[in-house]
Amino acid sequence: MTKKTAEIGILLGSKSDLALVKKVEEVFSFFDVSWEISIASAHRTPGDVVAYVKNAPRRGIKVLIAAAGLSAALPGVVAAHTHLPVVGIPVNAGSIGGLDALLSVAQMPPGVPVASVGIDGVRNAALFAVRILGLVRSDLAEKLEAWSKKESEAVRSSRSGIEGLPCPPDKAFTEE
Amino acid sequence: MTKKTAEIGILLGSKSDLALVKKVEEVFSFFDVSWEISIASAHRTPGDVVAYVKNAPRRGIKVLIAAAGLSAALPGVVAAHTHLPVVGIPVNAGSIGGLDALLSVAQMPPGVPVASVGIDGVRNAALFAVRILGLVRSDLAEKLEAWSKKESEAVRSSRSGIEGLPCPPDKAFTEE
Amino acid sequence: MTKKTAEIGILLGSKSDLALVKKVEEVFSFFDVSWEISIASAHRTPGDVVAYVKNAPRRGIKVLIAAAGLSAALPGVVAAHTHLPVVGIPVNAGSIGGLDALLSVAQMPPGVPVASVGIDGVRNAALFAVRILGLVRSDLAEKLEAWSKKESEAVRSSRSGIEGLPCPPDKAFTEE
Amino acid sequence: MTKKTAEIGILLGSKSDLALVKKVEEVFSFFDVSWEISIASAHRTPGDVVAYVKNAPRRGIKVLIAAAGLSAALPGVVAAHTHLPVVGIPVNAGSIGGLDALLSVAQMPPGVPVASVGIDGVRNAALFAVRILGLVRSDLAEKLEAWSKKESEAVRSSRSGIEGLPCPPDKAFTEE
Amino acid sequence: MTKKTAEIGILLGSKSDLALVKKVEEVFSFFDVSWEISIASAHRTPGDVVAYVKNAPRRGIKVLIAAAGLSAALPGVVAAHTHLPVVGIPVNAGSIGGLDALLSVAQMPPGVPVASVGIDGVRNAALFAVRILGLVRSDLAEKLEAWSKKESEAVRSSRSGIEGLPCPPDKAFTEE
Amino acid sequence: MTKKTAEIGILLGSKSDLALVKKVEEVFSFFDVSWEISIASAHRTPGDVVAYVKNAPRRGIKVLIAAAGLSAALPGVVAAHTHLPVVGIPVNAGSIGGLDALLSVAQMPPGVPVASVGIDGVRNAALFAVRILGLVRSDLAEKLEAWSKKESEAVRSSRSGIEGLPCPPDKAFTEE
Amino acid sequence: MTKKTAEIGILLGSKSDLALVKKVEEVFSFFDVSWEISIASAHRTPGDVVAYVKNAPRRGIKVLIAAAGLSAALPGVVAAHTHLPVVGIPVNAGSIGGLDALLSVAQMPPGVPVASVGIDGVRNAALFAVRILGLVRSDLAEKLEAWSKKESEAVRSSRSGIEGLPCPPDKAFTEE
Amino acid sequence: MTKKTAEIGILLGSKSDLALVKKVEEVFSFFDVSWEISIASAHRTPGDVVAYVKNAPRRGIKVLIAAAGLSAALPGVVAAHTHLPVVGIPVNAGSIGGLDALLSVAQMPPGVPVASVGIDGVRNAALFAVRILGLVRSDLAEKLEAWSKKESEAVRSSRSGIEGLPCPPDKAFTEE
Repeated sequence: MTKKTAEIGILLGSKSDLALVKKVEEVFSFFDVSWEISIASAHRTPGDVVAYVKNAPRRGIKVLIAAAGLSAALPGVVAAHTHLPVVGIPVNAGSIGGLDALLSVAQMPPGVPVASVGIDGVRNAALFAVRILGLVRSDLAEKLEAWSKKESEAVRSSRSGIEGLPCPPDKAFTEE
Repeated sequence: MTKKTAEIGILLGSKSDLALVKKVEEVFSFFDVSWEISIASAHRTPGDVVAYVKNAPRRGIKVLIAAAGLSAALPGVVAAHTHLPVVGIPVNAGSIGGLDALLSVAQMPPGVPVASVGIDGVRNAALFAVRILGLVRSDLAEKLEAWSKKESEAVRSSRSGIEGLPCPPDKAFTEE
Repeated sequence: MTKKTAEIGILLGSKSDLALVKKVEEVFSFFDVSWEISIASAHRTPGDVVAYVKNAPRRGIKVLIAAAGLSAALPGVVAAHTHLPVVGIPVNAGSIGGLDALLSVAQMPPGVPVASVGIDGVRNAALFAVRILGLVRSDLAEKLEAWSKKESEAVRSSRSGIEGLPCPPDKAFTEE
Repeated sequence: MTKKTAEIGILLGSKSDLALVKKVEEVFSFFDVSWEISIASAHRTPGDVVAYVKNAPRRGIKVLIAAAGLSAALPGVVAAHTHLPVVGIPVNAGSIGGLDALLSVAQMPPGVPVASVGIDGVRNAALFAVRILGLVRSDLAEKLEAWSKKESEAVRSSRSGIEGLPCPPDKAFTEE
Repeated sequence: MTKKTAEIGILLGSKSDLALVKKVEEVFSFFDVSWEISIASAHRTPGDVVAYVKNAPRRGIKVLIAAAGLSAALPGVVAAHTHLPVVGIPVNAGSIGGLDALLSVAQMPPGVPVASVGIDGVRNAALFAVRILGLVRSDLAEKLEAWSKKESEAVRSSRSGIEGLPCPPDKAFTEE
Repeated sequence: MTKKTAEIGILLGSKSDLALVKKVEEVFSFFDVSWEISIASAHRTPGDVVAYVKNAPRRGIKVLIAAAGLSAALPGVVAAHTHLPVVGIPVNAGSIGGLDALLSVAQMPPGVPVASVGIDGVRNAALFAVRILGLVRSDLAEKLEAWSKKESEAVRSSRSGIEGLPCPPDKAFTEE
Repeated sequence: MTKKTAEIGILLGSKSDLALVKKVEEVFSFFDVSWEISIASAHRTPGDVVAYVKNAPRRGIKVLIAAAGLSAALPGVVAAHTHLPVVGIPVNAGSIGGLDALLSVAQMPPGVPVASVGIDGVRNAALFAVRILGLVRSDLAEKLEAWSKKESEAVRSSRSGIEGLPCPPDKAFTEE
Repeated sequence: MTKKTAEIGILLGSKSDLALVKKVEEVFSFFDVSWEISIASAHRTPGDVVAYVKNAPRRGIKVLIAAAGLSAALPGVVAAHTHLPVVGIPVNAGSIGGLDALLSVAQMPPGVPVASVGIDGVRNAALFAVRILGLVRSDLAEKLEAWSKKESEAVRSSRSGIEGLPCPPDKAFTEE
């Protein structure tokens, strides 16, 4: 289903993470970044994880994203088999709010790095991957600027929606 | 929409905090305190935050309140650009009950102070701001006294509503 | 020993907090703010706490600071008997790093506000009290500006002390 | 509404705790223990708390129970004004599962004791109070024995309700 | 109801844990392992627990599983009265996500071992018990292999269900 | 070594808790309360625990105190075999500050009550036991009053030791 | 250096865990259990881990123990490549007391089981492995009984060492 | 002091973090990566942070690393003013083991990404930055391979240092 080579490869530890993680689509679509997503478990299909990860550079992938809940070993296992940057998404999948996954993803022993976004931090994982891609795709600079503008404008336009409450005038945010 | 100059300025890190934080209205209305509320993000519109905060004293604002969830940087960033007292409201916006926001708001490094109320502690943030205003508005002393009376009476009158359970006589709370 | 009327009154829940909290002296001395410090326990001398707090406004006190560890009830009890703003300092006094005190100080039920600084956040409690005082003492504006400059300069001068490591040129921090 | 003198007095920090705490009724009814329940806040009606607590021994109360959520100061404040044993019930009233209340109730500084049951531990607070009363009411020994039997039987009879799953024979629990 | 002697015996601290723990059935059925489940409380029927545990080896039980919530003493008490391996299941039964039960089950003092699975980790407790049984039942090796295959296939087949999103080709997981 | 019958019996889960818990001596000596202390483990000598607890009432014991660290099952096991009130002391014995022991002691399932003091809360456990004894020993009322006075005086006299810092006058704590 | 085939194989994620984990020696020596210990990292030498684990059954190993700190992926990765029972030891290696390792080891996703002992629970991991071995080595029953007796005696003999404090008579622990 | 243009720029929130963070030197030296380190505070010198970050791309910096403790706002503020990838290092600087910093760094609100390494995860932050650089510097592939080999060899050679304990033969790690 991937028409062009994926620049970003995403692995989920479980299909149950799919509803959450597919929110990356909105981000990658904005940036016209090619990506792919699949499911492979550090514990149940470890060989698949290793194969996918080792194949990744040859297939054109530049950044890997791995999402998992509970004792979220997937991002670390991915990082152990590649030299590509690996972004981990700790997923809130158990009963303690994802604190288990955050610690499992972030607290990697020294030597094999994973960079963790926040719990269920799907959008930020995608954006972080795009920033990395920006180092090799010069067209992304403009898009990143546009994204920031869009984010800023979203915040600003949300101001006008505060009806019935006293609001500061617009100039409170501009003049100095 | 602000008729008189706002004495208290509130910034929210996200519009999603509005439903929670607008409960300040009941407090400020009781005290006849002028206020204003808006949205500006430490990360998405940092320039707006700085401009708003730097304009605040000149516009007559005496106390700033900043509410944010997750890695709640807004109160600290506000405090970094003003000498006004800044009250932080950590918002329960993620999956770990707001503990992230409480630590982000309260654990400020020494040198730039933020004072934090509890998680989602909107009413107390408003009351704390009113207490500060009380130092410059002598009419507030009477109103603060009335507020306390109202709070006390609310507790006392709630006693009479315990139907069907054995209750102590009123004098149990008064004689000594 | 207090020559002039104290503007800021500090209560400690235990004498063991004194070594920590007396670090306010450096701050108050810089700002030429008069202050006083004493010990009174919400549990062991509750009557003294109430008397002190009720006497405070008449004695000229404008802001109260209360420091306590463990189940740190003191700041809340202080706030229950006054309309002055009360800043709470959660003290790391037990075996769980002061998290108990932080939650006890910050998580006040709605109606009686306490504003908490971070665990052992003595300097910030003092600075926050000074910012409040700044609303009634116009001479503090200049001093607060000077304090900020001092803080900024301390950070900047610490840059020059990084010997043996590659550092950016000064202009990296100024030009845009 | 109390016909006979209450042996156990319960204070709630807020009426919102009533639905939870009134579950003591089942326990006290079983033991034919007289009790009373009311609402008084350590922060909003501190004078009422003190008056109630100081009147308690004269009114015949033998054990005090205090329930509160968040920064749950009530049990400690109650204990500070009496020599009666005080049982604290930390109530799950905020967003972090009552951990704030548990720490506030249990982590009392040395000198003024509170004994805490678990979060929302209403039944155990009542049972603990009954055990204390057992020291002065000899009739309770038999009832405590009956209660334990009832508890044991409830567990045992629940075994027979496991339909459709393989169960051990009864003798697995008796012979040795 | 047990036709053949149970190889694995499960105790629940409360009938309320039954809905959760009966999910072991699927696992044990796959492996054709005989098992039994019952209810006995470390606190309310301690004698039953001891009797059951002491009878267990004579009755043919090889592995014990104990599930409990809150202050989950059951697994430890079970382990104290047997030399069989005891697997503990901490149950999420209170308001803090089962962290209380996990710590109670896992943090056993040295000398009497309990091995804990994750919070509500019913399936893994069953699988762990099966692995232990595998040491004495040679037929289980094949079944364990089949189980792993089933698990792997479940992950792999879940890949094909990702419709509408870009997916890697199958060979991305196989070739190297 | 016990000359008179012990009114309070203390069990430690491990000899390593002795240095901590023997601090009860100072409290019991003040109150002229007879007591005894010993070591028995819920996991390593469960039979001894049961025997001691069942013998306790006949031997004249009125209150039991149980101290343990980590997965602190001892207080609950003690409470399961007696109708006497049981006070639990969670001991900081592992690497997470005693939070494991606090949860294990406090979070007892409903039906068998334990009342927990704070982590390492030895003095408060002793004082709580004395308060209970006060229900049957009328001479303790006076001593409890004296204890409170001693505690209050200790706080007050600590005020005079604050040298070199500005202090409020004594009347700040008395007049109203 | 292994003379006889090892029945228990231990992997450490880092050599820094060796000082802690070698305490298994005392346990295995008591039971005359053959064992071996080595170092292999889930992240730095994942291939070695897989090879070791896959070779283990053929080499005669019956139980695997894996110890790791921080984001402790090792036990889970070991369990993913074997059908032997895997006991995990979460090691306190970072700044949060080993809570990260406990969650990483215990909170395994369903399908691949690891059983966790407590933080730094070396002795219990060894004892748990011995209990498993007991299913295939009938000589261990007697030794396990002897071990329990030794543990019990150690507790009992520690009683006699309480000098200078009031102790219960020995019969308090035996008669009923 | 920087001879060639820095590819990686590091900001510390406080000079007290320097001793920790300068351990990056060993990593960058291995990879022959040019870097620079300096100090700028999100709260005390926010303008310097913004200027440095905005100048960074023009100065040739490809990846930014920001380290801070407590309420660690620096990484988020850095990320708010650039489109470069920002790696955050949460520093253990307070009394709760760096959990405050980890949550502050990782739990970024959606829209502005920061990727966090573990608490005090200096080496991994450096390695992660190198992996990103690897996308634009083809010479790094070989060095990354060499680094991994070095890491693997370090683990393997540590095996031979286990004297006096039974070890598996080397072939246990190689044959399959």
